[in-house]
Parts: sequence; C-alpha cells; structure tokens
Amino acid sequence: MTNKEFKERLKNVNQFRITENRDFTNLINDLRDTGFNAKRLSLACEIYKEMVEDKECVKFFGLAGALIPAGMQGIMHDFIRDGFLDVLVTTGATLTHDIAETLGYHHLQGEVKVDTVDDSRLHDENMNRIYDVFLPNNAYEGIEDFIKDLRITDTTMPVSDFLKFLGDQLPDNSPSILKICASRDIPIFCPAFTDSGLALQLGFHHQKINLNHFKDMLKMVDLAWDAKRAGVCIIGGGVPKNFIMQSLQFCPNSASYAIQITMDRPEPGGLSGATLQEAISWGKVSQDAKYSTVISDATIILPLVYWYLKKSI
Amino acid sequence: MTNKEFKERLKNVNQFRITENRDFTNLINDLRDTGFNAKRLSLACEIYKEMVEDKECVKFFGLAGALIPAGMQGIMHDFIRDGFLDVLVTTGATLTHDIAETLGYHHLQGEVKVDTVDDSRLHDENMNRIYDVFLPNNAYEGIEDFIKDLRITDTTMPVSDFLKFLGDQLPDNSPSILKICASRDIPIFCPAFTDSGLALQLGFHHQKINLNHFKDMLKMVDLAWDAKRAGVCIIGGGVPKNFIMQSLQFCPNSASYAIQITMDRPEPGGLSGATLQEAISWGKVSQDAKYSTVISDATIILPLVYWYLKKSI
Amino acid sequence: MTNKEFKERLKNVNQFRITENRDFTNLINDLRDTGFNAKRLSLACEIYKEMVEDKECVKFFGLAGALIPAGMQGIMHDFIRDGFLDVLVTTGATLTHDIAETLGYHHLQGEVKVDTVDDSRLHDENMNRIYDVFLPNNAYEGIEDFIKDLRITDTTMPVSDFLKFLGDQLPDNSPSILKICASRDIPIFCPAFTDSGLALQLGFHHQKINLNHFKDMLKMVDLAWDAKRAGVCIIGGGVPKNFIMQSLQFCPNSASYAIQITMDRPEPGGLSGATLQEAISWGKVSQDAKYSTVISDATIILPLVYWYLKKSI
Amino acid sequence: MTNKEFKERLKNVNQFRITENRDFTNLINDLRDTGFNAKRLSLACEIYKEMVEDKECVKFFGLAGALIPAGMQGIMHDFIRDGFLDVLVTTGATLTHDIAETLGYHHLQGEVKVDTVDDSRLHDENMNRIYDVFLPNNAYEGIEDFIKDLRITDTTMPVSDFLKFLGDQLPDNSPSILKICASRDIPIFCPAFTDSGLALQLGFHHQKINLNHFKDMLKMVDLAWDAKRAGVCIIGGGVPKNFIMQSLQFCPNSASYAIQITMDRPEPGGLSGATLQEAISWGKVSQDAKYSTVISDATIILPLVYWYLKKSI
Repeated sequence: MTNKEFKERLKNVNQFRITENRDFTNLINDLRDTGFNAKRLSLACEIYKEMVEDKECVKFFGLAGALIPAGMQGIMHDFIRDGFLDVLVTTGATLTHDIAETLGYHHLQGEVKVDTVDDSRLHDENMNRIYDVFLPNNAYEGIEDFIKDLRITDTTMPVSDFLKFLGDQLPDNSPSILKICASRDIPIFCPAFTDSGLALQLGFHHQKINLNHFKDMLKMVDLAWDAKRAGVCIIGGGVPKNFIMQSLQFCPNSASYAIQITMDRPEPGGLSGATLQEAISWGKVSQDAKYSTVISDATIILPLVYWYLKKSI
Repeated sequence: MTNKEFKERLKNVNQFRITENRDFTNLINDLRDTGFNAKRLSLACEIYKEMVEDKECVKFFGLAGALIPAGMQGIMHDFIRDGFLDVLVTTGATLTHDIAETLGYHHLQGEVKVDTVDDSRLHDENMNRIYDVFLPNNAYEGIEDFIKDLRITDTTMPVSDFLKFLGDQLPDNSPSILKICASRDIPIFCPAFTDSGLALQLGFHHQKINLNHFKDMLKMVDLAWDAKRAGVCIIGGGVPKNFIMQSLQFCPNSASYAIQITMDRPEPGGLSGATLQEAISWGKVSQDAKYSTVISDATIILPLVYWYLKKSI
Repeated sequence: MTNKEFKERLKNVNQFRITENRDFTNLINDLRDTGFNAKRLSLACEIYKEMVEDKECVKFFGLAGALIPAGMQGIMHDFIRDGFLDVLVTTGATLTHDIAETLGYHHLQGEVKVDTVDDSRLHDENMNRIYDVFLPNNAYEGIEDFIKDLRITDTTMPVSDFLKFLGDQLPDNSPSILKICASRDIPIFCPAFTDSGLALQLGFHHQKINLNHFKDMLKMVDLAWDAKRAGVCIIGGGVPKNFIMQSLQFCPNSASYAIQITMDRPEPGGLSGATLQEAISWGKVSQDAKYSTVISDATIILPLVYWYLKKSI
Repeated sequence: MTNKEFKERLKNVNQFRITENRDFTNLINDLRDTGFNAKRLSLACEIYKEMVEDKECVKFFGLAGALIPAGMQGIMHDFIRDGFLDVLVTTGATLTHDIAETLGYHHLQGEVKVDTVDDSRLHDENMNRIYDVFLPNNAYEGIEDFIKDLRITDTTMPVSDFLKFLGDQLPDNSPSILKICASRDIPIFCPAFTDSGLALQLGFHHQKINLNHFKDMLKMVDLAWDAKRAGVCIIGGGVPKNFIMQSLQFCPNSASYAIQITMDRPEPGGLSGATLQEAISWGKVSQDAKYSTVISDATIILPLVYWYLKKSI
C-alpha cells in the first residue's frame, strides 16, 4: 500500500449522536465510523451479517466461558434456532450448565457484592460460586440422575453423536442448546469433553464408555474441508477457538469471515488472545478475509450482536 | 449478614430472550438478573438513572481516555446538554481534541488495519496515530492560531475559569464539550492541564500565564462539601478519578452513587483500576452507596448508558 | 475476625533495598513484606517451597499457553527432573511443540518487531506466527513422519498411557517434557488431546485409534482421591486448570496449597481467571489452604520460581 | 524489508536452562533469545543499560502507580542515587506517599486476604486501603503538620522548584525520593500536583499559593529540546508518560531509547497502554529507536531492572 492509497482509505471520524427515537441497527451502523472497540463492534456486526447472508458460508461458532450461568442460554438458543451458526464447538462446562438449567436447576444471583462474599461459608452451604453467580450442589445430583439412567447403546460413538443423543433426551420446547442443536441437526463438538462434570457422571455410571474423540476431530476437518466458504465466530477463546482454527489450517479455503469477542490479549502469547491477523500466517484465516476482534465481555456483546442480526437480516 | 439473609438475597438467573420488537430499555433491564459484566452494565444504568432523578444529588463526571478521537464528542455533548452531569473533570488531551474538532479539524479513521500500520511512514506523513484513529499535525497549527489570538485579561485565574472563557470563544451550535459546559455554567476541572497540547500553545504564546490550579482544587472541595448528596461517574480512571475521589474523601457526605467504566483492574494497585468497594475504606464512597464497575471499553458503554438515560427518564 | 485480630495481622511494608551482592533467594523473601504482585510472587514461591518439602503432598501442575515456543522447554524439563511436580496436565499444543523441538525443529525469534510483521507474507513463506515467535511449517512434516511410523499396539489405551509410550520413543538426554515424564513415571494428562496438531497426525495415519479419555479422567480422580495432601500449580488456566480442579472437587482432601500464574482476571467470569478464593466455595481448594495468584506472564515468573526452588530447597 | 532480510533476522529460540550457581545477569541475558514478555524484559534491561552507558543521553523517567505503598521506595531511592535517571516525572500521590514514609508513617500489609477484607470496617478503623496495603489516616495528620509549618517565601515558583524545596526540608539519609532528587539536583515534575493529598494540605494552609505549572511545562520542553539524545522509561503510564512524550514530540531529537512497564494495553485507546511503536508516528520516539514494552506489574519488574543495571554496569 502506498502512502497515497493509505490516505485515500481515510475519512473523518463520525461524531455521531443518538436522537430521540433512535433505531438500534442505526446506532451500530453509526459506530462503524468511530474508533477503538466501538468500531470493532460495528465491524463485527457487519461481518456477521454478511456471513449469514452468504448462503455458501459454513459458520463455525466457538463458545467458551460460563455464558449460561450468566443468563445467556436463551440468547444462544435463539441464535442457533435462527440459523446464525452451522457448527458449534464448546466446552464440557457449557453443556453441563445447559443440562442443569434444562432439568430445572437454576444458577442464582442477586444483591450480592462479589467483593465481600465469603467462599468458605459458601462451601458450607454447598453453594458453588462462578464469579457473581452461584450454583447449588444439588444441580450435580440432578445431572447424575439424568446421566445414570441413560441407555447408551454405542459406547464408542463420537462425542458429537453422543451430544445429539443427549439433546434428543431433553424436553421439547426447552431453551436447551443441546436440544435445539439436536433438533436442527447442528453438530456440537466438545474436544475437552472429559473436562466436565457431565463427563464425570458418565464415567462413574457407564464404565465401558469410550466415546471416540478422534472421529470428531476428523469429522470437523471434513466439515472445514468441504466448506465452500468458512466463517468463524469465537467467544472467549480456549479449546473451541483452537479446534476450529486447526481444522481450517490445512483446508483449501481458510476463513473468509472471522470475528472474536474476548477479554484476552495477544501479549502473553496464548491462543485465546491471539489476533485474527496472526491466524493469517497459519492459513487459518484467509489473506483477504474480513475480520474483527472486540475486546469485551461476551455477556454484553452477544445480546447486541444477536439483536443486530435479528433486526437487520 | 447471616447465611439465611445471604440466601434470601438470591434468586434465579434470568435466561432472558430478545423478542422481535424488543425495546432497548427493557433489554438493559433484563440484564439486571444475569451475571458478570452484563449485570454490572444494567446496574450501572439503573444507578445512573436514580442519580439523575435525585434532584439533590451533585453528579461528578470524570472523563479520561481519547473518547473524542473515537467519535464520542456528540454523545458527550448531548450528555451534558441533557443534564446528566453537574461537574466535569477531564484531561488536557480531551480538551485539545474538543477544540480541534470544533475548529473544523478532524480525527480520521477508515479501512486501516491497526496490526499492519507503519508508524514510521505515518510520521513522515505528519499523521499522529491514536490506536486506529489518526490526527494530522495541522490540527495543532489550527489550535495554535486559535490560542495565540486569545486576549487573556487575567493570567492567574483558576483553570476552570479559563476553560469557561475558552468555551465562550467557540462557535454557538458546535458540538463542543467546552462550549456546552460554558453555556450551561457547568464547571470543567482539569488538574493536569499543563499536560496537554492546548497548554503548550498557551505557554508558548502567553508567557505570563500562571493559571491558579490551587483555586480549582479548593473550589472542587467546596462543591463536594456542599453537595447534599454526591454521585460519581468515572470513565477510564486517571487523574479525573482521583481528583473527584480526593474531594469527596473528607466530606460529610461521600458518594451515594458511584459508577465506573474502565478496562483497568485492581491487581496492579493503581487507582484507575481500584474497585469502588475499596473507595469505601477511604470515605470517598459511602458505606451504603449503590455502585457498579463495568469492565469494558467506554466507546461501547457510554452510548448505551446515554441511550438508556434518554429513553427511561 | 475481629477488628483487633485484623490489626494484629498488620505490619509495616518493608521498603527493602538491593545491596551489592544480593542473593536471589533473599530478594524474593524481601518481597514477602511488600504489596501487589511482588508480594504475591514471593508468597507463591514460599508456598511452592512448602509444597515440595511436604513429602505427603501430591503436586498437580497445570500447564497451558505456548511456553515451549517462548523458550521454556529447558526450564520445564528441569522442573520435572528435580521433582517439583508429580502430575502434569497440559494442552495438545504443548506436546506438539515439545516433539517439534525434540526432533530438531526449532521455533524462531529475532530482531523482529511484532507490531510491523506482515502475516500475509509469513503465510506465503510457510511461517506460522505465535505472537513474536515463528514455527516453520516443515516442523509439522517432521511430526507427521514421527507419528506415522509409530507401532501402536493398543488403540484404546488412555491418552496418558499413549503419552508415556510417546515419551519412550524420544531420544535419551533430550530436553523433552514427554521424555522426562516417561522416564520418571510422571503421568501426563491431556484432556483436549484431539485439539492438537499431534492428534491430527495420529488420526490421519492411525485410523483405528480411539484413545480412552474417560479412563484418564477416572485415573485423575483416583490420584486426587488418594492424595494425603494435594498441591496445585496452575500456569495460564484453560482446560488443565479445570481438569485438576474438577478432580479435587469431590475429594475428601481438597488442595492444601494452590498457586496460579496467569494474565487472566476474574471479572469476565471464565475459569482461567477465577480466583483461588472462589475455588474454596467448590471444595477444590481447602478452606484453610495457602494460596497465591500472580497476575503475570509465566515466561517471566516460571524461571524465577524454578530458580527460587532450586536455591532454597 | 524483503522476505530474505526478514528470514536473516531470525534465529532459534533459546531453550535456556538455569544451572546451579546461575548469575542473575546471565539469566536476564538468556531471556533475550526467548519470546513474549520474557524477551521483552531482557530487551528492556539491555536498552536501559545502553541508555545509562550513553553519557550524552538524558534519561526521562515517568513514575505512576502506588509503588511506595507497595514497598518500592528504597529501590526508587537507590535507582536515583545510582544515576539511572536524570529527570523524574511523577504523580502527587507518589510524593504524598514518599513524605508519609519519610516522616515515619508507614504503609501496612500482612496476612490479609484482599478478597475478604471489609472496606466498611476499614473505614470505621480509619484505615485506607490501596489494594492489599493499608494507610492509616493519621499519616495525613503528620503530613498536615509538616506542610502547615513550611515557610514558603515564593508562592509562585514552579512546582519543580517547590519539590526541591520540600526535599531540602526532609532529613538527611532518609530513603526519600524527594530528598535524594533534591540533593542530586534531579528535577521532579508533577503536572497533576493539585491532584494529591499533599497539595490539598498546601492549599488549606497556604492560601496564597499559586505554584506555576506553566514554567514547569516550558522547563521540561527545554530539557527535552537540549538533550543530545533522549531516553525514556515509563512505569505505569498516566500523566507522567504523556508529559514526557509531549515534551519530546516537537524536539529535533525524539527518544532514542524507550522502555515501558505497564499492565495497560493499546486496544481501549488510552495513552497509558499505547505502544511505543505508536509514539513513532507522533515523533515522540525516534524512527530508529530501540524500545521495549514489558506487560507486567512494576513491583516485580522494577527490582529486577535495578538489579540488572547494578550488576552489569
């Protein structure tokens, strides 16, 4: 890029205003001509919209972090229901939280200041803390009852098949992520499945179980390989991010669209905080991809992105 | 608080959903019963609303960070115009950016990837970078012309008086923060005024100038002392945060309401990231205050808070 | 704790000095009476020392993040050789990097400014970037050759058994983490094994492979259950942290010692940044445990901790 | 830079080891060929050493953050005594803390877990919290007595002159930063002086005071202008960083050496976290400067840098 080309790309920052009956979509669009994370958020919304409208794009969605304890189960459910993702990669914890809520156990919150909570007392009360949210131990008992009664006919199926089987057991019309994925044939991958309370119960009560993680890995590579175009949305980072990225690395078509929403940063060198720019060197993201990283808590951004897609598509 | 009282404060996390014609205010209200930063944002909006509706509350607003380069001049202007703050404490950089935009010089942005920008080339092009925003050097020339022609009759007035004088010189109907504060008699304090391009020009061209910073300091203490109730909103931290907090420290009424929006954290021990809880030990925030810290970029949160206040008050 | 008890615990901050022939151990000890992360580092060293000296303590070590690309293979090797950990939980990436280095492929660095690197060009050069370190693609070819020639007799062994088998194949006297663990019978757990380049090669070339992740999970629970006392050191967070913590959650003896070194923070609600205090509510860390979190990059802290242990035990 | 040149700059990452009687200087030097923050720390030490050895370089040192409460007064004192800085720019809080410690009031710490401290009780006990350090209110009474008895003959001197005057009042052989700077004729600039407890006492008891901040600003510009070469070390960011940088911006010689140690990051757009690379666009840092940012807590890094300089120069 020459200096002249560089300058031609520049335009005035938009000192936008919010008028009385402002429309949400217009607000996000206005942020496009600002700077910092506001601009990145607007760009992320724009890219996601384009990704959904591109009918040949397979949308990979990596979900890490305790979003369901923080009240994001309904949003994620509708996100999936409305077709905003095609492949979900997530953590065992998210699936455990999803089952707990779906079985009628609830995460708790309230007028409790996290700075002054006494974790030792919480322990005595069988109350597990997730920052400012609490999960009573009895949720694990409910999950245990649910898991131990499962009739698993194939103990070596891929984890993704097992997760579809699990989803099928859950009640219709529930806000469950497992359920909506099962009913829409959206595969869920969970590479670190045994790192979860759900898998612990499975291991305790179904001792012959040996779900095939390698078949998932190869299936995921096939999905990436077969995608005419690929799009990526990363929430939080972690294993879901890496698993999506490694699948795209050796494909003929790396990601054409990429978004990540995370509080992690590049300087400590971990993959969660790595820039999407860096992913270009690996061939995970395409050299001419559109991409945007929003450095922010997903509990704020995910509802905004959902709302934007809902209103603008 | 007994275990029983603790439990009575708890309730289910709200797995909210966004329906088709969702209203923005309701969305923010729904986040109140979630967790993490979503809950903190909702609580911050609720507290700010209460603070505005409390007619006996003096609202101190601390603004640090390059918000105007990022396109937030209009929002801040309307924030002030609509009565959402009573006292502004800010940085010299913000005032410098405000004058540049008001005089018709503009911050620039565009389709420029910050990961690949060449700062050495930018320097050759007289283009100063502020993350992903650019300010051409000629803005400083414009400010110089503006400053050198000022006729300053009192060289030892407080900085806040000088800032009112400056605001009075700026055109009517401009989106200037200085102007709207001047026209509404809202004092602006800038304790680190000489740490700015604006003050440099003043010092170069008005060599007898010795604006009285101590009078500002005492005036600010008087404002805090006289407030029947005090409310605080901190954007970013820095000197504006400390200046507001030190004024409240020895007052009979420390802050009853306190909000901060920052990416800084408590662990490195600096004041910018210090919790509002910690401020209670100092008597800066009241023992029974309502408070909330949102760990997020203000360029995303400030427009949302403004919009919430606008629609719900 | 009464106010009186609180005050009795307080003492003056030590305004220490570093004299000419200062000993490193004394410096760390001096930091014990300071504040912020310096104090946390000193406390972490002290706790780790106590953990090593407690012969009945099983030391669980969770390692996430690209430490080998950043030059920490030798330190980690010696850490293990010197008996500073009993159980290693890590990521597939770390194992992949370990094999690459051990087979003679090297991560690269140099006088390269990360702010100005062109990832698109790197891609054309088959050079994969990990922040400011580079891994040429041919390392993957070397790993492929190594993996495809393996003669795996049991395709359903636990991952930890396979990792011991892998370690046994690597040359003696190499700085390999896999090798030193294999030769010392230190189990390595890798719950997200299929999330790695190593596992991809395994899956491509050994299509019947179905390593049993559930047996690892149960074996890990047994190790935690049988530990008379447990100690935990977490580098970075991620799956390794959660996998160790979930194993301790239901044990009669949760961790008596706990250290974590991470740049992640609690506010976004993810487990990586969760405080060790929070882990008490879950019964992962004991109510009377000694614990310390150092908010810092492990590439700086890990060598310091190693050196401290080496010199003081 | 061509691809060939890029590759020629690369070399193997050094998988260094720490042998029994390792020398600290060698450890830091070994980190030079690693990655991430370890490499940045090593580079920062190397640059600082070069800066000290360059006899024509004026070393500007920006100090923000509560380092004295965290026990770093002695290190900073010796840093100054040993000639590692020529100009100090700092905050009013640091000067206030310096006087408190020098007058015999002490910051307190101890076996207190910051997660469970009750700030409301601290307030009742007149104990002010700075993260995990405490400052009893009576320190402010001591400062008040000290300040009110000062005989200030010139009420309009520059702040830097006043700070020299203050230093001269403090006892010989004290670990005071003010004292050692005064005795070595090292100027201290404090652009946000009135944002401090020290200035509050000055304003309360010396009502005619109007220290001239503008003269400081111009003096600082002169120092930068006259420097044959300039070096910069930034701790934490804030006003001290900006004040140094704005002075260098218009000089013929911008900084040839630049180091910063901070936990702040570039993405939110504030100056504290801005990269040194960005400063090149402004002409604050020279296009061919040597620079390094260590993303870490200064309470860990500052003693290491001091020790390195002490042993290697």
